[in-house]
Amino acid sequence: MKPQKIAVLGPGSWGTALSQVLNDNGHEVRIWGNNPEQITEINEQHTNQRYFKDIILDKKIKAFTDLSEAIEGVDAVLFVVPTKVTRLVAKQLAEVLRHKVHILHASKGLEQGTHARISSILEEEIPSEYRGEIVVVSGPSHAEETIVRDITLISAASKNHDEAKYAQNIFSNDYFRLYTNTDVVGVETAGALKNIIAVGAGALHGLGFGDNAKAAIITRGLTEITRLGVAMGAEPLTYSGLSGVGDLIVTGTSVHSRNWRAGDALGRGEKLEDVERNMGMIIEGVSTTKAAYELAQQLNIDMPITETIYKVLYEGLDAKVGILDIMRRETRAENEFTN
Amino acid sequence: MKPQKIAVLGPGSWGTALSQVLNDNGHEVRIWGNNPEQITEINEQHTNQRYFKDIILDKKIKAFTDLSEAIEGVDAVLFVVPTKVTRLVAKQLAEVLRHKVHILHASKGLEQGTHARISSILEEEIPSEYRGEIVVVSGPSHAEETIVRDITLISAASKNHDEAKYAQNIFSNDYFRLYTNTDVVGVETAGALKNIIAVGAGALHGLGFGDNAKAAIITRGLTEITRLGVAMGAEPLTYSGLSGVGDLIVTGTSVHSRNWRAGDALGRGEKLEDVERNMGMIIEGVSTTKAAYELAQQLNIDMPITETIYKVLYEGLDAKVGILDIMRRETRAENEFTN
Repeated sequence: MKPQKIAVLGPGSWGTALSQVLNDNGHEVRIWGNNPEQITEINEQHTNQRYFKDIILDKKIKAFTDLSEAIEGVDAVLFVVPTKVTRLVAKQLAEVLRHKVHILHASKGLEQGTHARISSILEEEIPSEYRGEIVVVSGPSHAEETIVRDITLISAASKNHDEAKYAQNIFSNDYFRLYTNTDVVGVETAGALKNIIAVGAGALHGLGFGDNAKAAIITRGLTEITRLGVAMGAEPLTYSGLSGVGDLIVTGTSVHSRNWRAGDALGRGEKLEDVERNMGMIIEGVSTTKAAYELAQQLNIDMPITETIYKVLYEGLDAKVGILDIMRRETRAENEFTN
Repeated sequence: MKPQKIAVLGPGSWGTALSQVLNDNGHEVRIWGNNPEQITEINEQHTNQRYFKDIILDKKIKAFTDLSEAIEGVDAVLFVVPTKVTRLVAKQLAEVLRHKVHILHASKGLEQGTHARISSILEEEIPSEYRGEIVVVSGPSHAEETIVRDITLISAASKNHDEAKYAQNIFSNDYFRLYTNTDVVGVETAGALKNIIAVGAGALHGLGFGDNAKAAIITRGLTEITRLGVAMGAEPLTYSGLSGVGDLIVTGTSVHSRNWRAGDALGRGEKLEDVERNMGMIIEGVSTTKAAYELAQQLNIDMPITETIYKVLYEGLDAKVGILDIMRRETRAENEFTN
């Protein structure tokens, strides 16, 4: 394919890593962000020190604080902003966008209050004449590994298979590969909900439990987030794929994951406010837990692990008491989301 | 339930850990093994030093080298012997068993040559008038953690739900819990086949790849073992449960797993003979890879990861060349086992 011009909205760790992948593939990358120092740093030092101490970005990658400048003549716009500002940024884009583009996103969360998925927000805010069907890009991917070009495989899902293929084409290379998928709801909810379980697995580690217990909470957690995902319209098998199991393995067993680290700190007895302040990054799993807890109540879905984590995060439940309680619940049959 | 009398065949690490669980629950445990020194050590020192350096077993646990003595008056027989001797031990049991018992097993493998599942071997060799339907007990469980009573959750599957409930009842306590499942083929093949992927994940680590790549091989590996399992009669969703995803997480990400360690050594360039000799324990994943590779050929199932590991193990393919090749294969759609 001929080189594309692509705006990447959000110069966080993942946005930066994805920008480098696209630049490696010969595309023209235009990063947009609202922090002038960070944008100047990318343009002048070719670094993004807040996330990557030792990485020098290619000089061809340009950064902008002006959104209309960033999207001028682009073929595609990739959203990689925190969930809580997605709607705001989408509204801003809708105000300045006057030509049709491919829209992709790589964020993992559910909107507070509405519980909306990211692609629903984008569909609502960006007029359909200016975009193709949204593509969700999600899977097991520590930015720290992708930025050093370690092998990464993720999913690209869209209602329109051609749009998913487009994402596959612009991103795929020797170290970065995309698998197409048609289950947008599944890929999107799996990526968001798995962060709840990563917090739980981290908490178990912080409490001193071993690998058997962690594998158990990840697996039982997978069962309950699948149950919620299915109620939201997902295919259950999507949760066995890269955006589900794959991402859960990477976030649920690794100190690289901020959700896991937040859970670990909670397990060691730290308070949520302190954890969030010390981290200095958005912990999507914390707000996703609230959204999922509310959705589960609304849709009448049994989610004991999510409920426990919600109570630890928002109602002061002691992590150890809560975790021991769910691990010791009445035994029952597996795979109850199937009926 | 009233205390049961249970024979545990196989004093390996998992057989010993399960014996302690049953003893903790007030059952009378009779371990059987064919190594006289080990049996004497269990009876006189109350240790099993080959597997657990610092563990003292309860004096009530008795061990035997004579099979008819071990099974005298027992309510249940639990097989925890290596796959390759399962048929032999089952034949020996059939010769001496003269009363009806519950039969359980906790082994993970496929028979060489026949590719038979363990429960099929037991069904073939033990006359049905002397047994209930076989129960498979399988899931994420490092013996090293269960023996120190860390929390462990696994699956119990049987064609007869009452037999699965029986296993749940005798094993479950505060730190050890069983979930019942009716998909014997699924639980059994997931437990066996996941060892192939553990070898692969270990090899990636030995080759120096990161968490993204490991999560990818585990997830893509899960997809292909599910594909084979489904062809053998398994329910795909069983592979998302404790015996599939759960066990894969524990064996695919942990240095405790001998299959993972074997892969790691192969990745670092060691030869299979040396790895097996240095380990001094059965590496089920090595022979399971051969069985699965042959089955995949026979059933015409696409299993690129298994095929690569087979070639590394048995045909001298360089691990790095093989792994890079599968990681870079033509991109495609996820979840192909669904059609």
